[in-house]
Amino acid sequence: MSRLTLALDVMGGDFGPRVTIPASILALQRDPQLSLILFGDSTQISPYLSDLPSDIQQRLQLNHCSRYIANDQDVTSALRHSKGSSMRLAIEAVQQGNAQGAVSGGNTGALMGLAKVLLQPLQGIARPALVASLPTMDGGKTIMLDLGANLECDAQNLYQFALMGNIFAQNQLDLVFPRIALLNIGVEAIKGRQAIREAATLLAQNTELNYCGFIEGNQLLNGVADVIISDGFSGNIALKTLEGAANNLISLLKGKTKNSILKPLFKGLMRLLLNDRYQRLKRINPDAYNGASLLGLTAVVVKSHGGANTEAFANAIADAATQARQQIPQQILAGLQRIT
Amino acid sequence: MSRLTLALDVMGGDFGPRVTIPASILALQRDPQLSLILFGDSTQISPYLSDLPSDIQQRLQLNHCSRYIANDQDVTSALRHSKGSSMRLAIEAVQQGNAQGAVSGGNTGALMGLAKVLLQPLQGIARPALVASLPTMDGGKTIMLDLGANLECDAQNLYQFALMGNIFAQNQLDLVFPRIALLNIGVEAIKGRQAIREAATLLAQNTELNYCGFIEGNQLLNGVADVIISDGFSGNIALKTLEGAANNLISLLKGKTKNSILKPLFKGLMRLLLNDRYQRLKRINPDAYNGASLLGLTAVVVKSHGGANTEAFANAIADAATQARQQIPQQILAGLQRIT
Repeated sequence: MSRLTLALDVMGGDFGPRVTIPASILALQRDPQLSLILFGDSTQISPYLSDLPSDIQQRLQLNHCSRYIANDQDVTSALRHSKGSSMRLAIEAVQQGNAQGAVSGGNTGALMGLAKVLLQPLQGIARPALVASLPTMDGGKTIMLDLGANLECDAQNLYQFALMGNIFAQNQLDLVFPRIALLNIGVEAIKGRQAIREAATLLAQNTELNYCGFIEGNQLLNGVADVIISDGFSGNIALKTLEGAANNLISLLKGKTKNSILKPLFKGLMRLLLNDRYQRLKRINPDAYNGASLLGLTAVVVKSHGGANTEAFANAIADAATQARQQIPQQILAGLQRIT
Repeated sequence: MSRLTLALDVMGGDFGPRVTIPASILALQRDPQLSLILFGDSTQISPYLSDLPSDIQQRLQLNHCSRYIANDQDVTSALRHSKGSSMRLAIEAVQQGNAQGAVSGGNTGALMGLAKVLLQPLQGIARPALVASLPTMDGGKTIMLDLGANLECDAQNLYQFALMGNIFAQNQLDLVFPRIALLNIGVEAIKGRQAIREAATLLAQNTELNYCGFIEGNQLLNGVADVIISDGFSGNIALKTLEGAANNLISLLKGKTKNSILKPLFKGLMRLLLNDRYQRLKRINPDAYNGASLLGLTAVVVKSHGGANTEAFANAIADAATQARQQIPQQILAGLQRIT
């Protein structure tokens, strides 16, 4: 692994420094080649930084700023008043070459807006997208985009998402010819919105892509595609619906039973019988995976889940580090020039 | 219960008469006040009609037709060539007053198209919608619409869906002041598509409605709203994503384990500890519930799931009977005149 510096907005997310600072320390412990520049309110941050081993201390730089963008601020106003905010400073650190990627758990719209303005979309990309990898029931992973950055998408947008997702999946899932599918409300060619049907035609015409047709919501977890393409609105709805179903299920399995004597026995048996599947199920829990990425920009930007816990935010940092080392933006640019 | 006649397109769905005819007989056995007019190919249907008790025979009328609309036919062509098809004849039976409602498991687009032309939308309704009730984790039910009839919706469409869903929930869930929510990608007022934000304003202004804000995909099963409003595209994606997650989970819990001695013990324990929750979970299985309804027409039309089994198609018939007896179309019309 190569040496790498990431810039962190530690004020974003539902819990701020209480989660982001312990997560930063965890990420530094796990990745000895990683350095972090933290942007945030030092009075809130300092309590979590006492008694650090010097090895960690040396790779952690704190840049104080008192301003930050609220989660519920509307994007226009957030951007207008973004100067000096922790999120903007983190992205500026990447813009200025002081860091190779940024991570924030803050306002998604503001993060995308700032990243587009400061880091710029890659040449030829009209709309950067939000991408994540979902665990599938067969133990694999599926890349899905857009997950909420672009609420309305035309055929060309969806086509570009597929081009980007293709390259992302090649790198992240280590696949040669990822299977690409479009999220739709039926599998027949006549189904769905016009933009999707037109995107299907564009994708089918490109022989460098392994386009395999439409996919419905009930197939998202079944590993039938490696890359699932959607507009940001429906993609977000689908992702959150999955998360909700998984969380409900986990709480159901963990749920309190009236019979406290039988419960440990039951738990043990479940582990014995269902172990691998239960582990897979747990991975669908948004706490356990994390780090949606902004794809299509000139640099790596990772959006952590707002409700991420320490483990999940540390995963988001690790994700950003991997993408920066894999040079995903450069790969996408090269791929676009080759493929379009 | 009052006497009632329904018209059935028995050629629709993935399995045709093999499922629809046994389901019809089941529905007649369960509802002694129900009569059915079946439209379909008598050579395919007759084998399932032998040896019927005379009580059932008397309430079952078979109208032969050799034509039917294919599931994958595009809507325009399906409508143009619909004359004499089983689906169209069933709807015409309602139009002519020979039946009080229609049921089909066939092509949703064609069913909606024919119903709109032959039965007409209720006065003041721009877009009829597809509605279903979802079981929630707390053992209740939630009404959700639109589930796929209208892929693009403006604020007024969404507002009308809410008006219709309100009345549907009052009758189907027996509620006085149903909680209405809009499906969106965030709960903050600034989030989502413009049409949704405008619909939120319209709903909040109407004091006869219990509008409670946006709901995200992860809350669909949590019983936080009685009526969930969405455009048909996102609603369909969300519903199918839920179905897929539930099916995956059920197969995971039912799944084969390597240890065949422990399995029965495990199953018994699970039943003991999780019984009510497991039962609830099973209800999310699309086999166990069925019957999305076309809402906003002058008569009751129920769309059965294409993959419905006998039990599920029988449920769809029972659903249509309930709605016809509750006079849902008349209730919606009266409600619209009172509320708008």
